[in-house]
Amino acid sequence: MPPHILADPRDLRDAVARSLHDFFDRQSGLVDAVGPEFRNAVNRLEEFVLRGGKRVRPTFAWIGWIGAGGDPHSAEAPGVLTACASLELIQACALIHDDIIDKSLTRRGYPTAHVEFARDHRDAGWAGNAEEFGTAASILVGDLALAWADDMFHGAELDAPAHRRALPVWSAMRTEVLGGQLLDIVVESSGDGSIESALKINRFKTAAYTVERPLHLGAAIAGADASVVHAYRSFGADIGIAFQLRDDVLGVFGDPSVTGKPSGDDLRSGKRTALLAYALEAADMNHPQAAATLRGAVGSALSDTDVNELRMLIAELGAVDRIEHEISALTENALAALRASGVRQHAAEALHEMALTVTRRTY
Amino acid sequence: MPPHILADPRDLRDAVARSLHDFFDRQSGLVDAVGPEFRNAVNRLEEFVLRGGKRVRPTFAWIGWIGAGGDPHSAEAPGVLTACASLELIQACALIHDDIIDKSLTRRGYPTAHVEFARDHRDAGWAGNAEEFGTAASILVGDLALAWADDMFHGAELDAPAHRRALPVWSAMRTEVLGGQLLDIVVESSGDGSIESALKINRFKTAAYTVERPLHLGAAIAGADASVVHAYRSFGADIGIAFQLRDDVLGVFGDPSVTGKPSGDDLRSGKRTALLAYALEAADMNHPQAAATLRGAVGSALSDTDVNELRMLIAELGAVDRIEHEISALTENALAALRASGVRQHAAEALHEMALTVTRRTY
Repeated sequence: MPPHILADPRDLRDAVARSLHDFFDRQSGLVDAVGPEFRNAVNRLEEFVLRGGKRVRPTFAWIGWIGAGGDPHSAEAPGVLTACASLELIQACALIHDDIIDKSLTRRGYPTAHVEFARDHRDAGWAGNAEEFGTAASILVGDLALAWADDMFHGAELDAPAHRRALPVWSAMRTEVLGGQLLDIVVESSGDGSIESALKINRFKTAAYTVERPLHLGAAIAGADASVVHAYRSFGADIGIAFQLRDDVLGVFGDPSVTGKPSGDDLRSGKRTALLAYALEAADMNHPQAAATLRGAVGSALSDTDVNELRMLIAELGAVDRIEHEISALTENALAALRASGVRQHAAEALHEMALTVTRRTY
Repeated sequence: MPPHILADPRDLRDAVARSLHDFFDRQSGLVDAVGPEFRNAVNRLEEFVLRGGKRVRPTFAWIGWIGAGGDPHSAEAPGVLTACASLELIQACALIHDDIIDKSLTRRGYPTAHVEFARDHRDAGWAGNAEEFGTAASILVGDLALAWADDMFHGAELDAPAHRRALPVWSAMRTEVLGGQLLDIVVESSGDGSIESALKINRFKTAAYTVERPLHLGAAIAGADASVVHAYRSFGADIGIAFQLRDDVLGVFGDPSVTGKPSGDDLRSGKRTALLAYALEAADMNHPQAAATLRGAVGSALSDTDVNELRMLIAELGAVDRIEHEISALTENALAALRASGVRQHAAEALHEMALTVTRRTY
């Protein structure tokens, strides 16, 4: 563990990647016993996991542990790092299965898993439907990622009391994110455009899973007292929701070269975000025609001109100002909870910095 | 734990069902916090898990534990039972996701999960495609079953050394079944009709997952010595493959009122079974026209007359005799390994009985 692991987050990202790579290595015996067909699929999963992301969840868990008294130079640290890194395998399952559900074609600038498996099928000239094969293989590979997240976490050699303390947090996190995803698809189908539902999805699908529970997990491993856990959960819930609200704004107004998603993606896909809920609420009160326009357009095939007009409409209805105001208020609240807590200084500074990074206006 | 738990397998089945029901109860707080949409999905999962099956895997794990010295009247027994029962949640994920992949409409005499969720969507009059909603909801509910299998297993309060011994077996089992399923979909697409591939799928998708690893898991929890583990794995691999070979025969020749599947189901779906591989091998050697008929017919829409003709052809090619011979040889081998082992008498008798039950000719 380099001494400056908190000073430079890139070191932590590298350590997480190494930990994941080592885990995949340890699975080799089991994988190769089944044969080359399984090996190919596992290699795709490993590429996906190693190429990816900002490692937000492992970072929150690791800083959570340090802030609650964990020592990155101690003998326990490598085990804790493994436990934190395993969060990326849950995320791999969530993304691979989400991309099937949303029929997404790209992820992190690459074809999604089901698209890659379908291409393998076509390249090999196999019988049957390539897309159906792609879906089937991605369902199974996502399952494998989820099973391996547990194997990596429970095999991380935490000491027995730390493992016992972490268990209920680990369980709650996985149940909450799946609950949030189920709520999301129901709300998208039922057309429930309420602010309450949008915020509930943000809370369970994003905030709890991305910030609150990872911090809580780190705290539980460290054996933190109730006041630190309370501060983390309060900070995590607020920053997690602010992070999703920022994502909602980027999903409509973001620059595709920054977000990696097509312009106005959320408008085309019909995602029921808090931004849309605010716009609809304002429109329903004072501009019934605007409300009808929004309801008719969102989730349909939109030209770039349509997207631009919808953006202007949403902004004019005050929804963006309201979201920006909320992001600021949530962030201030979160930082106040952090300041009032007994979280160790270096970790508190790192969390302060991360809070600003993940909620910052970048479009 | 009733004293006659080995004498009457129904008592064990009831105990497994109670253990699963109690686990679902303990999840209530988390589920209801997300809300009624999640609660509905979880209720569907609980119904699926509680209505189902012969509890083959928990039974092998439990008897494996007792045969290796576990005491059903001891203080550890309830925790061990919980760990064994958690295998049914892995199975729930496997079946729910398999039914999506195979587009199956019924399971255990009821509509499959994706069909039920699609019906909910239609009944509610929601927007969008009901079938796509059914698939999405079943992917997520299968994921939940898999995550909960781990939560139930790791939360089962095994003592720490028993938990540590069980971990690698638990990991291997889940990796092997997913590897076997991946191999299965690749082989079905690639049209690889080899005996080797068919037997490898049987080994990983069925034998390891259904008999060998559950017995091994029970042995690991009990702290069995290497000779008992060796006997279990040998017995489990043989009986597991014999069980799958029996299933292959039933999939072509079985009575729908007994199997719960349409007559000749495997022929219509194009499943690459060992039975088919044997028939193709014999045909390729001596009856090229029969080989062409088989290859052209299997996996296509078949009338009942077609199915009957294919059945006669497969039997005439000697494939059924060969499978029956193998089932007998595997069963004898397995029983010999059991007799030569130090497995405790009552458990060995129960395993002997189960070996005959799961491989018995019933069509």
